[in-house]
Amino acid sequence: MSKKIKVAISIGDLNGVGLEIALNSHETIKELVEPIYMVSESLAKEGARLLNRKLPQDFTCHGKYKNFKIKPGVVSKEAGKVSFKSFKTALELADKKKVDAVLTLPISKEAWNKAKENYKGHTDYIAQRYAKRAIMALGCEAMFVALYTDHIPLKKVARKIEEEKLYDFFMDLAKSTNEERIGVLGFNPHIGENGVLGEEDFAIVKAIKKANKKLNKDLFEGPLVPDTAFTKTKREKYKFYVAMYHDQGLIPLKTLFFDESINVSLNIPIIRASVDHGTAYDIAYKDKNPNCKSYINAVKWIEKIPT
Amino acid sequence: MSKKIKVAISIGDLNGVGLEIALNSHETIKELVEPIYMVSESLAKEGARLLNRKLPQDFTCHGKYKNFKIKPGVVSKEAGKVSFKSFKTALELADKKKVDAVLTLPISKEAWNKAKENYKGHTDYIAQRYAKRAIMALGCEAMFVALYTDHIPLKKVARKIEEEKLYDFFMDLAKSTNEERIGVLGFNPHIGENGVLGEEDFAIVKAIKKANKKLNKDLFEGPLVPDTAFTKTKREKYKFYVAMYHDQGLIPLKTLFFDESINVSLNIPIIRASVDHGTAYDIAYKDKNPNCKSYINAVKWIEKIPT
Repeated sequence: MSKKIKVAISIGDLNGVGLEIALNSHETIKELVEPIYMVSESLAKEGARLLNRKLPQDFTCHGKYKNFKIKPGVVSKEAGKVSFKSFKTALELADKKKVDAVLTLPISKEAWNKAKENYKGHTDYIAQRYAKRAIMALGCEAMFVALYTDHIPLKKVARKIEEEKLYDFFMDLAKSTNEERIGVLGFNPHIGENGVLGEEDFAIVKAIKKANKKLNKDLFEGPLVPDTAFTKTKREKYKFYVAMYHDQGLIPLKTLFFDESINVSLNIPIIRASVDHGTAYDIAYKDKNPNCKSYINAVKWIEKIPT
Repeated sequence: MSKKIKVAISIGDLNGVGLEIALNSHETIKELVEPIYMVSESLAKEGARLLNRKLPQDFTCHGKYKNFKIKPGVVSKEAGKVSFKSFKTALELADKKKVDAVLTLPISKEAWNKAKENYKGHTDYIAQRYAKRAIMALGCEAMFVALYTDHIPLKKVARKIEEEKLYDFFMDLAKSTNEERIGVLGFNPHIGENGVLGEEDFAIVKAIKKANKKLNKDLFEGPLVPDTAFTKTKREKYKFYVAMYHDQGLIPLKTLFFDESINVSLNIPIIRASVDHGTAYDIAYKDKNPNCKSYINAVKWIEKIPT
């Protein structure tokens, strides 16, 4: 039996559903990995008490965090401070190779802002910390999508569709995955109908050719006509896609696999996965049984990464 | 029993799968409507002969068309001429109220061009013939999408997201459907996060409010966050959507209902539905049993329209 890999669990916003998901899934995930929770024992105990249960004996806590009163569903500076520190501590352990990977539970950006941590979220902080372009990829076992552009206004995407930038992205992505075939979406309807409906797709064609030539294999295929790229037949061929913009990739993913998806950061020095949902303040600590599929799938994704 | 409605069937490109679909579905559709086929009896017989069968006795043909030799899978001027005339004849019958609706089988734009009929397709000709903005809507019983913009480069969409233009579109659409609730998609990721990820969604908010006020009912809802608008829960709520651009609406539709969808033109003086696939030259007259779902669904859609 191989040794279980260590995973630092960034506990997320303690006024949200993160701790509840961690507690509900502890017995399942400890069979797959060795979880280390980035939260103090006293805060974890307080959360467990609000959920009318006991903290498991083997719920390993790590780090120092200021105590505060957990207020279910409330955006607070105190919760923001703790969730930010929990995340940072997880990254520090990963940087020092004390853990093999980081798994993040949902934070509130508003709470981070109240705590004067002015990042747009986990991925934004990661990109700044590692001074590299983190590639945001989302998905599940059946389908994964890497986003060429993510949180930018849609009208700004067209000018980013340039051969050189696309080529760099493809090369970064090739280094970050073990995929054997990646379907690249086109940009315009009907991939531009030979220029009549837009010219950006010509750049995609060139970048794919250049990347495949450099890689000496036909890793990237496309550009695929966007609206028929996710039919059943196409998904039997492609498990991994590159989308040119946020909704192009996430509409089909969430249409098909809403509850199951995870969010991973590629092209950074550490391994990091995240759940693909928010703090769900509305159901936190209300015995509403928050969905743990995304969390458990994130653990499974981490577990499968060759170390 | 109510009288069956009359439908002019534009036969499409005779070198493609149109006639085969019409023949294969004749027994089924004649139970629902009274089909009148816009093709000469001699061409229909020749096509039937190529398919090794006889033309049914009650296969009513209409119009005069120049005879030519059907060549399966070939783009030809002769086929283009006949398919264009077939389409035009169908519209003429509808204009004169001699039929209640028009159903179009797939044509080849290239063949039309060879025949010097320089339209981008059925919808383009319809828009010019009726000098109105035809609204392109696609879907099936489970889900329909009307496109605010359709065949234009994606980079040109942002500048079209304006309150007044959207309002006009909403009012035109309201006149063309009996829907009780229409979900309107936002434009930017996360509908712009209050402007941080783009400002176009503010115009959508205003146009929805204005249209609902004018209509004196809350017909339009949104803007919906695009990437979560098509989850199972959301689709239980919305059966009819407005998409801001081609792929935003057609990616989820084709991902979920590829074979079943139809294409209809709204906001024109006649009723017109079409199959949502092409000429399928590769399988024409090869006994490959072309999929008739879209055709039959188009007939069902027409049959349900209150006359």
